[in-house]
Amino acid sequence: MPKPTPMSGFPEWLPPQRMIEQHVVDSLRETFELHGFAPVETRSVEPLDQLLSKGETDKEIYLLRRLQAEADESDGAHGNQGFGLHFDLTVPFARYVLENAGKLEFPFRRYQIQKAWRGERPQEGRYREFLQADIDVVDRDTLPFHYEVELPLVVAEALRKLPLPPIRMHVNTRKIPEGFYRGLGIADYTAVLRTVDKLAKIGPDKVHALLTETAGCNPSQADACLALAQISTADASFADQVRAIGPSDPLLDEGLDELTRVIEAGRGQAEDLFIADLSVARGLDYYTGTVYETLLVGHEGLGSISSGGRYDALASDGDTTYPGVGLSIGVTRMLGRLFGQGLLDISRQVPTCVVVALPDEGSRDVCAGIAAQLRGRGIATQVAPAADKYGKQIKYAERRGIPYVWFPQPDGSGQVRDIRSGEQVDADAGQWVPLSADLRPVITGGAQ
Amino acid sequence: MPKPTPMSGFPEWLPPQRMIEQHVVDSLRETFELHGFAPVETRSVEPLDQLLSKGETDKEIYLLRRLQAEADESDGAHGNQGFGLHFDLTVPFARYVLENAGKLEFPFRRYQIQKAWRGERPQEGRYREFLQADIDVVDRDTLPFHYEVELPLVVAEALRKLPLPPIRMHVNTRKIPEGFYRGLGIADYTAVLRTVDKLAKIGPDKVHALLTETAGCNPSQADACLALAQISTADASFADQVRAIGPSDPLLDEGLDELTRVIEAGRGQAEDLFIADLSVARGLDYYTGTVYETLLVGHEGLGSISSGGRYDALASDGDTTYPGVGLSIGVTRMLGRLFGQGLLDISRQVPTCVVVALPDEGSRDVCAGIAAQLRGRGIATQVAPAADKYGKQIKYAERRGIPYVWFPQPDGSGQVRDIRSGEQVDADAGQWVPLSADLRPVITGGAQ
Repeated sequence: MPKPTPMSGFPEWLPPQRMIEQHVVDSLRETFELHGFAPVETRSVEPLDQLLSKGETDKEIYLLRRLQAEADESDGAHGNQGFGLHFDLTVPFARYVLENAGKLEFPFRRYQIQKAWRGERPQEGRYREFLQADIDVVDRDTLPFHYEVELPLVVAEALRKLPLPPIRMHVNTRKIPEGFYRGLGIADYTAVLRTVDKLAKIGPDKVHALLTETAGCNPSQADACLALAQISTADASFADQVRAIGPSDPLLDEGLDELTRVIEAGRGQAEDLFIADLSVARGLDYYTGTVYETLLVGHEGLGSISSGGRYDALASDGDTTYPGVGLSIGVTRMLGRLFGQGLLDISRQVPTCVVVALPDEGSRDVCAGIAAQLRGRGIATQVAPAADKYGKQIKYAERRGIPYVWFPQPDGSGQVRDIRSGEQVDADAGQWVPLSADLRPVITGGAQ
Repeated sequence: MPKPTPMSGFPEWLPPQRMIEQHVVDSLRETFELHGFAPVETRSVEPLDQLLSKGETDKEIYLLRRLQAEADESDGAHGNQGFGLHFDLTVPFARYVLENAGKLEFPFRRYQIQKAWRGERPQEGRYREFLQADIDVVDRDTLPFHYEVELPLVVAEALRKLPLPPIRMHVNTRKIPEGFYRGLGIADYTAVLRTVDKLAKIGPDKVHALLTETAGCNPSQADACLALAQISTADASFADQVRAIGPSDPLLDEGLDELTRVIEAGRGQAEDLFIADLSVARGLDYYTGTVYETLLVGHEGLGSISSGGRYDALASDGDTTYPGVGLSIGVTRMLGRLFGQGLLDISRQVPTCVVVALPDEGSRDVCAGIAAQLRGRGIATQVAPAADKYGKQIKYAERRGIPYVWFPQPDGSGQVRDIRSGEQVDADAGQWVPLSADLRPVITGGAQ
């Protein structure tokens, strides 16, 4: 076999990076569980019509076909009969809720940490295979507003426990532009919102031109819509700025009130953690209330590392609707950036804390017994691969960053050496403990 | 959307089952890390020629194609140009080792816990999407035999820590039949081994007939091959039984010696944990030394839940060969059976230990503060969804199996009720702790 080469868009980490990724996933999971979210995993595939029904049909979907399938088999990738890999965790979760509604307790709080796939052109922050970590709360028929305050706080808490640069969560609610546009007498809400959503990409002049040319605004309506989208405050003062522009509407008032509550709750955790940013729209059609985007300070160009919002009708079987609110964290996007810039490191390449040196091959059973004693007390231990000279066995540990080598003594006792300092002491495998900082690999970096 | 239905072969668990699965994965991972195995995840897809190069070409592979791909794109599923989902974790790992050989330290010990996919007809124990947990050690050029003793012991230890019925690992080495057949003067080793491998399926008479009709044996050679395959002992006495049949060969002697060492090491952990079973062949062409299959006692019909062996030439770039030994645990196969028979249970449906009751909606911030205090000390806590009558709030906890409800008092103090006993006591959110058995959901069952 010739030496294989990487596949663009399908990242793979070396073991030290994978250990960091596992730490991140463990930490997210711990926070989610502390907040009472239950775990769900869905299958990786969904019927194609399900994948295409949710607005984001521009996402490149990977279809599956069995290698040995007959051309006329119904699970082949023909027309809408086939199935494909999910491109996010929200669409499969909505399907899961409908499928299992009779067996779930509502309101249902779940987290889900899984791979997703998109056949997009790879670039920094965009992968073809990537790990997402989602939380959602869904209820039957109605969902109280307070979850729109709670969920971004849970995600912010989860992100702030990670070895990351500071985060800033940009928050808006669909109710503000919708009420505002209505107050202005604009008929086609969606066309205007979609146009304004291009602000960061094409700039205010071009948005203004599009608003008047294709979205049915007159120039003063376009001025007002642009002014709204440019409001951004770290406190509740955005509301006065909106009211100063002019239009009024009951839905606008409701939106201003709700966004104020979210922003003030964020300030309870940290100043500047949440930003009321009235340019945030989120491309997805299904959001109906608060929407969220999260930037890593100093890495804003990477785009949002955690997005989501409230949706009222994502899951419905015709009789019953399950409104929800949720956010998704782009684990691969975050880590790809931080790994790429060398901003995260780990103290060793393996979980191993101790290598038991092997005096001769005949002592392998004795050494395995020592290793088992240490493992029995939670200390990751392996026996040296061969009875080489001790210098070579120490090198084995050193090259992997393993801090300790254990030397069995002829009389049955033991000595353990910290190979960084060279200090070697008598030790009993039933009692000795490493420095607590050495027990597991330690992650460093992350802050800018 | 009409109510969706399950897809055959793509299992999905409800949250209590998913919590059990997570516990199993955590426990496997902990054992592997204690033994110094480092984590690796590979991408889910491999080039088709890679997937087809390893003997198991009868495995049904899922090919991927981008929905919007042009017919002539090279990443489409055309001929050998495409790529597909991996059907095990060994083939991707071999490719990963070759691709990253310059960045890995050898001998390289890795574990890998990931989904795999096969487009087979679903039946009990056979899924189209399933979770595998693998460990392997690979070295450069040569690999000492002692890993063939160590790795099945690690897997047995990992499995015995799980809430499973007892396991029995059936062990053989390819060297025994190969040396034995050579001693008998049989020319076509592979043809005979493949035929004998059908013993459990078609019985001794048909195997005997096939051996003489298609595998080139004379009747007395066929008798001897069948006698060899029927030897099975829980101790080292198999070796005398083999020698009593007659043929001798240096490779046979080596095989008998190595298998004796594996069996005796197993007996060091528990009687009957390892069985020398000379019928075990494993279908895969790439095994060259010891091979392993593992049965759950009382569930033998399910087939092997953990298999593997030594391979000398799975990964090679022409210049360098990376021999290895590894085993794979079929997590979905095990759990599918135990869930299906109701043999595993968990004490609640959610991670939550405490629900903070809500006296009125205006108290939500106060209640969130109490919840945060409890979570800060590792106690999973959520606030009640609505300020319903307390009876309804208690029902909310009860329906999910949450053991405690916290009642904030008007004077700022608190009381906590164990809703199973009804006992209610004064409590301080900065100090109170639940019964330790209540802190996390507890898994029960597993043993027959």
